[in-house]
Amino acid sequence: MQSYALTVDKFLDHAAKWRGEREVVTAGGGRISYAALRERSNLLSGALAHLGLEFGDRLATLAWNTQHHLELYYATMGAGLVCHTLNPRLPPAQLAAMVNEAEDEVIAVAANLSPLLDEILPLCPGLRGVILMDGGEVGEGRPAVDTWTLEALLESHGRAVTWGDFAEETPAGLCYTSGTTGRPKGVLYTHRSNYLHTLRALQADAIALTGEDSLLVAVPMFHANGWGLPFAAPAVGAKLVLPGRQADGASLTELMRREGVTIAAGVQTVWLGVVEHLDATGGDLPDLKRVLIGGSSCPEALIRRLEDRLGARVQTSWGMTELSPVGVIAPPNAPAGAQRASGRPPMGLDLKLTGADGIALPQQRGVVGHLKVKGASVVDRYFKADADVLDEEGYFDTGDLARLDEAGNLTLCGRSKDLIKSGGEWINPADIEDIVGRHPQVVQAAVIARQHPRWGERPVLIVEALPGADLDPRELIDALRGQVADWQLPDLVIQVAAMPLAATGKIDKNRLRADYGTEGAAGDGARLGEPRPDDAPGS
Amino acid sequence: MQSYALTVDKFLDHAAKWRGEREVVTAGGGRISYAALRERSNLLSGALAHLGLEFGDRLATLAWNTQHHLELYYATMGAGLVCHTLNPRLPPAQLAAMVNEAEDEVIAVAANLSPLLDEILPLCPGLRGVILMDGGEVGEGRPAVDTWTLEALLESHGRAVTWGDFAEETPAGLCYTSGTTGRPKGVLYTHRSNYLHTLRALQADAIALTGEDSLLVAVPMFHANGWGLPFAAPAVGAKLVLPGRQADGASLTELMRREGVTIAAGVQTVWLGVVEHLDATGGDLPDLKRVLIGGSSCPEALIRRLEDRLGARVQTSWGMTELSPVGVIAPPNAPAGAQRASGRPPMGLDLKLTGADGIALPQQRGVVGHLKVKGASVVDRYFKADADVLDEEGYFDTGDLARLDEAGNLTLCGRSKDLIKSGGEWINPADIEDIVGRHPQVVQAAVIARQHPRWGERPVLIVEALPGADLDPRELIDALRGQVADWQLPDLVIQVAAMPLAATGKIDKNRLRADYGTEGAAGDGARLGEPRPDDAPGS
Repeated sequence: MQSYALTVDKFLDHAAKWRGEREVVTAGGGRISYAALRERSNLLSGALAHLGLEFGDRLATLAWNTQHHLELYYATMGAGLVCHTLNPRLPPAQLAAMVNEAEDEVIAVAANLSPLLDEILPLCPGLRGVILMDGGEVGEGRPAVDTWTLEALLESHGRAVTWGDFAEETPAGLCYTSGTTGRPKGVLYTHRSNYLHTLRALQADAIALTGEDSLLVAVPMFHANGWGLPFAAPAVGAKLVLPGRQADGASLTELMRREGVTIAAGVQTVWLGVVEHLDATGGDLPDLKRVLIGGSSCPEALIRRLEDRLGARVQTSWGMTELSPVGVIAPPNAPAGAQRASGRPPMGLDLKLTGADGIALPQQRGVVGHLKVKGASVVDRYFKADADVLDEEGYFDTGDLARLDEAGNLTLCGRSKDLIKSGGEWINPADIEDIVGRHPQVVQAAVIARQHPRWGERPVLIVEALPGADLDPRELIDALRGQVADWQLPDLVIQVAAMPLAATGKIDKNRLRADYGTEGAAGDGARLGEPRPDDAPGS
Repeated sequence: MQSYALTVDKFLDHAAKWRGEREVVTAGGGRISYAALRERSNLLSGALAHLGLEFGDRLATLAWNTQHHLELYYATMGAGLVCHTLNPRLPPAQLAAMVNEAEDEVIAVAANLSPLLDEILPLCPGLRGVILMDGGEVGEGRPAVDTWTLEALLESHGRAVTWGDFAEETPAGLCYTSGTTGRPKGVLYTHRSNYLHTLRALQADAIALTGEDSLLVAVPMFHANGWGLPFAAPAVGAKLVLPGRQADGASLTELMRREGVTIAAGVQTVWLGVVEHLDATGGDLPDLKRVLIGGSSCPEALIRRLEDRLGARVQTSWGMTELSPVGVIAPPNAPAGAQRASGRPPMGLDLKLTGADGIALPQQRGVVGHLKVKGASVVDRYFKADADVLDEEGYFDTGDLARLDEAGNLTLCGRSKDLIKSGGEWINPADIEDIVGRHPQVVQAAVIARQHPRWGERPVLIVEALPGADLDPRELIDALRGQVADWQLPDLVIQVAAMPLAATGKIDKNRLRADYGTEGAAGDGARLGEPRPDDAPGS
């Protein structure tokens, strides 16, 4: 059969040829057809060559979900450059370290992130070019670097080039892990891994996107390929709706209504914002059929609330940067009960549960194990690492604990690093967080270990309550009683005004451990109570 | 990212692990879970090794759609053997030529095809083993070959082996083209081409199969991978329903009803049989949602009749052996009008229309051109051929003429070889067949060239009418008038009792040309009339 390289530029070519009139719409920006966007992106590849970027070179982006960002995805990848997406919510020093490790030569920056760029530039001597996106203007004061607006660069040096004329194993993108549990590590995606991830996601039992859909991508394009949706949408010719920087409920509601969004992807807090806006204003979203949520498991009550108010099905999933990122996903038509789990692996992702010793559990269903995965879109070694991170069977350790029900639906059960060892026995924070999270007045709950002279570690429960709620710690502990062993009950309940979040929106447990992980630590949460006696385990 | 070979054994592994309880059901045979079928197929790989088959060797099958045939698909391919499917409707000499060219070492034969095997064996000295499938018994009289029933072979020599431990470019299957327009040519599928074909077909805008579906495969597994459905069904864990040899309306109706079939694939004549049975018996198929038809374009009246009577959507498509085989496909939710076309190419198949000179037409929409395709599941060179069959841009010439509408939907417009050159001008038989085919009393229509001393070639119309119909040739010609140029009107109308069909069910135009292509040829069709004067073109 034909040799035919699986390169991502083919997605945009396909859209331009078969759905050329379908649009990419940016909130507060413009709208453009796939045919025109393909042409601009291709000309932009030529302009990047003019900046001296050659096959294999890396360009960084510091940007929101916009047309310009999408054009840079394809302009870089199509020409065999690597698109290194940076998370604008990270501190400048961390961003600079990533830019330097990646040896990025040019950085493309959203105009409203210019102040952040000014902090990064002095730390990154290797950067020799800046492209300002989304309407920025070239100011004074960056003499060391060649600065262009994207439009001026395209105008002056746009040139049509041949895309994709290279091996499918060519690197296409680079993204660093969120680093909530350690130093951020780079994941280098290839054309092949992204292409196969896309075909896998398009299955009718997975994201099931069609050419008739209007897709809102409210997950950031700067992280983990934006769930791969910037590839999936043109692959089928779906209308692509990009929210720019604005992810608040009012902005998203207006955008979704105006653009007839049928499928929308984002983390649960985004949808909570939309629901609160709809509650306050009384509107609805008549075209919306389905909402994809990712990250950790979503409380059932929240799913019901979202479905009722949005008038759309909630589709749960789980993934991670190292998986490109989609891992498991519930089918679009999953029965309501199955939604509490994150779903099954679609064809193309292998998965096993092991013990702490790395050996596959003899019984894979109904027990909690360490989650290992394998597939064409799964990392083998981190960027610039000396060794791979695979076990003998070629599986990658996700660092997550998980359980499979009899039907094979996966439920995440916390991070293996978060496990608390108390008196020689394990306590899984996720078990407690799950139960406390169902309390009607609790917004978010987190359990961390606190050092203890006798038991080694003891669990501390940290909660964020609804505004104005009057939480009783005994009520929370009572809810846990009978659900977990008595010696697993938290020793202390602390209420915080707002849960600290990492740049990706996940709860920042490192911060919680620093603030509350030792007696007398500096956290400013209110000590709600100490429901447990000191001699907790085995009492 | 991980190296992860795209091999088809992963489909069955996936089904066994994630949908292990879902069934493969054979009409008149048994039912088995994917988990058990995976185990049997794997043990069978070991048994084939006992027969001396080694990596790269070829095993022929002469079989219907049954569990045993499916087990042989996976037993061969999983172990790196090539499964060479033979069409039992071909003459023995032709089959023997294929077996010999392919150097098949073992042949697996449906019990009820033993008589055919006895005709082939003496012509194939290279065959040294026979496996009898579907309940056959080893008789006397084949001393030269080692003969087993599949069950006895499995019982005696079944042994678990490691599947798929080879490169994805490894050959997996071999199938010869139908040869309606020339000598049959072998197409050697690889694991990669089949795997990618499957992912492509599973898209929500393509076959959109889900794990909840019950799929009837009424297209033969002996031809072109059975549309790839023996891969697609386990890939998503759909129930797989195999009709064995019986493809008549009564048998299929009973099977579909009993097994709750939701999606069914077959050529249009199969569905006509089901509709006629339902008309005669008054039953219905409450679970059926969708019917996939392939081959050439289906008359709109037939689509309407099928949809009304079956209570299901008809999904049109076009493909060919060389494409693994799916080319374009209408989406499951296509608006009724778009069904007259065969659909758009799903992501992963590139397509262009050229002139007879092979140069891409400047305008790709609204005109008829020569259809060329490119993709990971498209042939590059025929089996044992010396040269590839691709143009300079890497496209394969399908030999078909086609038109794209403004929305990109493809309509086949006949074979380029069937074009008739009359007085230096082209006549496309498909234009005439399409119009005549809409006549309520016409079952099938075919137009062929007849040699003519003055004009070179002139069109002859051959029709098969509904039983008992009294066709008036002038009425047919009148229907054409104004739709095609006057000089393109057929000179002669011939009515046949039954249209001659090739082994794949397509109209056998070679046969028609032999019977009716010259003045005084031997065909026994009734000469309905000669509506045109002798000096036809340009009159």
